Amino acid sequence: MALPGLCGFNPMQDNNSSLFYIFPPSKNLLMKRRTFVKNSGLAVAGLALAEPGAGKWPGSKVRLGVIGTGLRGQNHIDNALRRTDVDIVSICDVDDRMLQMTTELIKKSGKSMPKIYSGDPYAFRHLLDAKNLDAILIATPWEWHAPMVLEGLQSGIKYVATEVVLGITLDEHWEVVHEAEKQKAHVMMLENVCYRRDVMAVMNMVRKGIFGELIHMQAGYQHDLRGVKFNNGIEPYDSGAEFGPKAFSEARWRTNHSVHRNGDLYPTHGIGPVAQMLDINHGNRFVSLSSFATKSRGLHNYIVARGGPDHPNAKVQFKLGDVVTTQINCVNGETILLQHDTNSPRPYSLGFRVQGTKGLWMDLNHSIYIEGMSKKNDVWDEAKSWLDQYDHPLWQRWGKDTEGAGHGGMDFFVLHAFIEAAKRGVPTPMDVYDAASWSAITPLSEKSIELGNQVVSFPDFTDGQWMYRKNDFALTDEF
Amino acid sequence: MALPGLCGFNPMQDNNSSLFYIFPPSKNLLMKRRTFVKNSGLAVAGLALAEPGAGKWPGSKVRLGVIGTGLRGQNHIDNALRRTDVDIVSICDVDDRMLQMTTELIKKSGKSMPKIYSGDPYAFRHLLDAKNLDAILIATPWEWHAPMVLEGLQSGIKYVATEVVLGITLDEHWEVVHEAEKQKAHVMMLENVCYRRDVMAVMNMVRKGIFGELIHMQAGYQHDLRGVKFNNGIEPYDSGAEFGPKAFSEARWRTNHSVHRNGDLYPTHGIGPVAQMLDINHGNRFVSLSSFATKSRGLHNYIVARGGPDHPNAKVQFKLGDVVTTQINCVNGETILLQHDTNSPRPYSLGFRVQGTKGLWMDLNHSIYIEGMSKKNDVWDEAKSWLDQYDHPLWQRWGKDTEGAGHGGMDFFVLHAFIEAAKRGVPTPMDVYDAASWSAITPLSEKSIELGNQVVSFPDFTDGQWMYRKNDFALTDEF
Repeated sequence: MALPGLCGFNPMQDNNSSLFYIFPPSKNLLMKRRTFVKNSGLAVAGLALAEPGAGKWPGSKVRLGVIGTGLRGQNHIDNALRRTDVDIVSICDVDDRMLQMTTELIKKSGKSMPKIYSGDPYAFRHLLDAKNLDAILIATPWEWHAPMVLEGLQSGIKYVATEVVLGITLDEHWEVVHEAEKQKAHVMMLENVCYRRDVMAVMNMVRKGIFGELIHMQAGYQHDLRGVKFNNGIEPYDSGAEFGPKAFSEARWRTNHSVHRNGDLYPTHGIGPVAQMLDINHGNRFVSLSSFATKSRGLHNYIVARGGPDHPNAKVQFKLGDVVTTQINCVNGETILLQHDTNSPRPYSLGFRVQGTKGLWMDLNHSIYIEGMSKKNDVWDEAKSWLDQYDHPLWQRWGKDTEGAGHGGMDFFVLHAFIEAAKRGVPTPMDVYDAASWSAITPLSEKSIELGNQVVSFPDFTDGQWMYRKNDFALTDEF
Repeated sequence: MALPGLCGFNPMQDNNSSLFYIFPPSKNLLMKRRTFVKNSGLAVAGLALAEPGAGKWPGSKVRLGVIGTGLRGQNHIDNALRRTDVDIVSICDVDDRMLQMTTELIKKSGKSMPKIYSGDPYAFRHLLDAKNLDAILIATPWEWHAPMVLEGLQSGIKYVATEVVLGITLDEHWEVVHEAEKQKAHVMMLENVCYRRDVMAVMNMVRKGIFGELIHMQAGYQHDLRGVKFNNGIEPYDSGAEFGPKAFSEARWRTNHSVHRNGDLYPTHGIGPVAQMLDINHGNRFVSLSSFATKSRGLHNYIVARGGPDHPNAKVQFKLGDVVTTQINCVNGETILLQHDTNSPRPYSLGFRVQGTKGLWMDLNHSIYIEGMSKKNDVWDEAKSWLDQYDHPLWQRWGKDTEGAGHGGMDFFVLHAFIEAAKRGVPTPMDVYDAASWSAITPLSEKSIELGNQVVSFPDFTDGQWMYRKNDFALTDEF
């Protein structure tokens, strides 16, 4: 195999390489799809997705193709290899080193080697053309998610999982929703934090009414990513001041979004759990949003600290504000506060707050207070005893299986849910409307900031069906 | 003395008493003042306030009049009585019970009894007419602050202290600013949290550059006030479901603002310290603001829980959202997040966050992280050792004097600063521009919410002088 670089492009041969280079999906492809969607009509918009009837549960296996075998894709493959109900039939990537790491992982598992598609950024089309899959899992750079989901759906695949986020522009989110409806297929965004053990225990408490009526929620992505956004091209983390073609792994493509975009670039780890607790798209919905961004300092400072003031990247003007804070109104009167904080030194925190008329949970200080139930008036309880008491049935049943699954076991559950739904031929517990409405926060927050923090309205991806839909996320201990 | 009730009004004789009753300053008075301000011209607008030349320091005493001797006024009187440099010359209130508590306090101190003005809501005019004061301190209901400050200034008093907030409408804030400029007099809002020990230590760290360049700040007023907003008319706290004329102390007037207004009703405890750290009005300024409010549930639920579903107050529709969250842009590119959360069960927290390019302080979990200085990478330090190391010189010098002064010693410092400035005849360390810009957040947040969370611009009370003014708040250990 000769894999010349990211998406078939060899930066070593690129004499015009810009600092901001990434290889995007071609515009022609996007135009083609847009025409297609337009012509197809929207007759099924907003309807519950029909059962595809492809379920072969119990006893059989899901034939899975994985597109994108970078470090994140390898996590999912590792978890899929541990399962007896998944056959990894095919994998696809354009990066030699990542494919080599993946094939070693598969060899070690003792399972049979999948067919490998590579050599071209559109090699994934050949993977789809083989028509031998029940499901695909996409773990590529952000800008490839929507195009790959769309082509996956168009190829007839009924179960499509994608890493966060769903797409870049608002229009792309609509395209995916309409295509899923048209194809009567299931698109699940792999939002693993919905399965974090403390988050699920708190959701359990919410559903049992312990917090009373919910009034205000907070969450975010507060994670010092400077060592992820820059590296030396060899080691993925904390190794240098390069990004784009000279870098490795996420720094190769992710950092470019910080150059060009100002908004909440990574909202789903925060909003996913909050949306589930608030029954968003199931009797509730997001109605409007406003975002504020600070000045941009952290990434420039990091380049100077790592590479010196004369490093070429020290000239880059990053548009992403160091802290971006977004407020969201819900139609039932709750507010949500989301923060994106990835350019500064700080301990990791998703900053959850779940507040109702009877009390609240705060993630940062690991505390819960419930009026009349907490040990002392107006004094926090250590959250642990509450979280233990309300441990979610999924964790009670599968806790042992999560060991080694990555991200504290969350990754086990998110793949488990996708595979179990595909096996049974039933809707995934997080669906295309969840994916679209959570992920759309990024383009909406960009728009708000572009307009001077203007409040902007939220699209209703369900076309009014949110009033009638029931939330069936994690109702049992099955998946 | 026959004091028939709040501001000379006896609710027991009021057959038309509405649930929403408070006794406001008369419109005629306001109209008179407005005409006066208009005619006076704005020639001195924005100039640094001139020295009034009334300072008699060292050795002499400040002749102080106190308007409003409710529970908060009594705190200040208690602290003033402990000082050897204050003569309380006169006091004024309309409430028999509060005046009786105050005179007992003064008797116990062994100091001479001040002249008492009472019997009429405008009795304070007689206090001012006596022309025997260097300074006045106002601790009345919110709607009386601006009118009393204005009449105090117009009477020739050069040092006017008022409890938070400065006024109700934006126009009132402007009137106070213009009158202070016209009279070359000093108006200090008694924002005590600027003197909280941990807050001052963090400000000290900010000024020494420990946090790097500031990028994002958070603060708020997160305090379960349900037991303050309602009582039984006899005990001030946690005693019943009454407010307005049938209630005692703050519930008598404060709760009415929750009935009629939706906004951040109490921003200054949060914004004051943050504004000092950001040098607001001193090289920086607030430029715009947007507020979001949740539905209103907590106050109604509390009435039902305390008084039953048939209690007359259970019919009241409270406009104040249970959680109001405000974002502010600063001209130097920082953002500020403010929260107001007073209607729900929760442990008290002002929720401070001070974040710069090198690290951050979080109040909630009592933690600080500074890159390269904290013990472990990406792990919080317990804040205590940092706060001890950077203890502010004011606290080092006066810490012992704060004992028993109320609110953990903050109340000592805020009065100390006002009295020391008056003794010396120098500007107060927090001035009329600070008071106006901090307090104006309330009417601006109301406006934003009324307009559907629209971003609204911030007035520049300094008329452009913010570019040239230096921040001299707490630069030494004197005051």
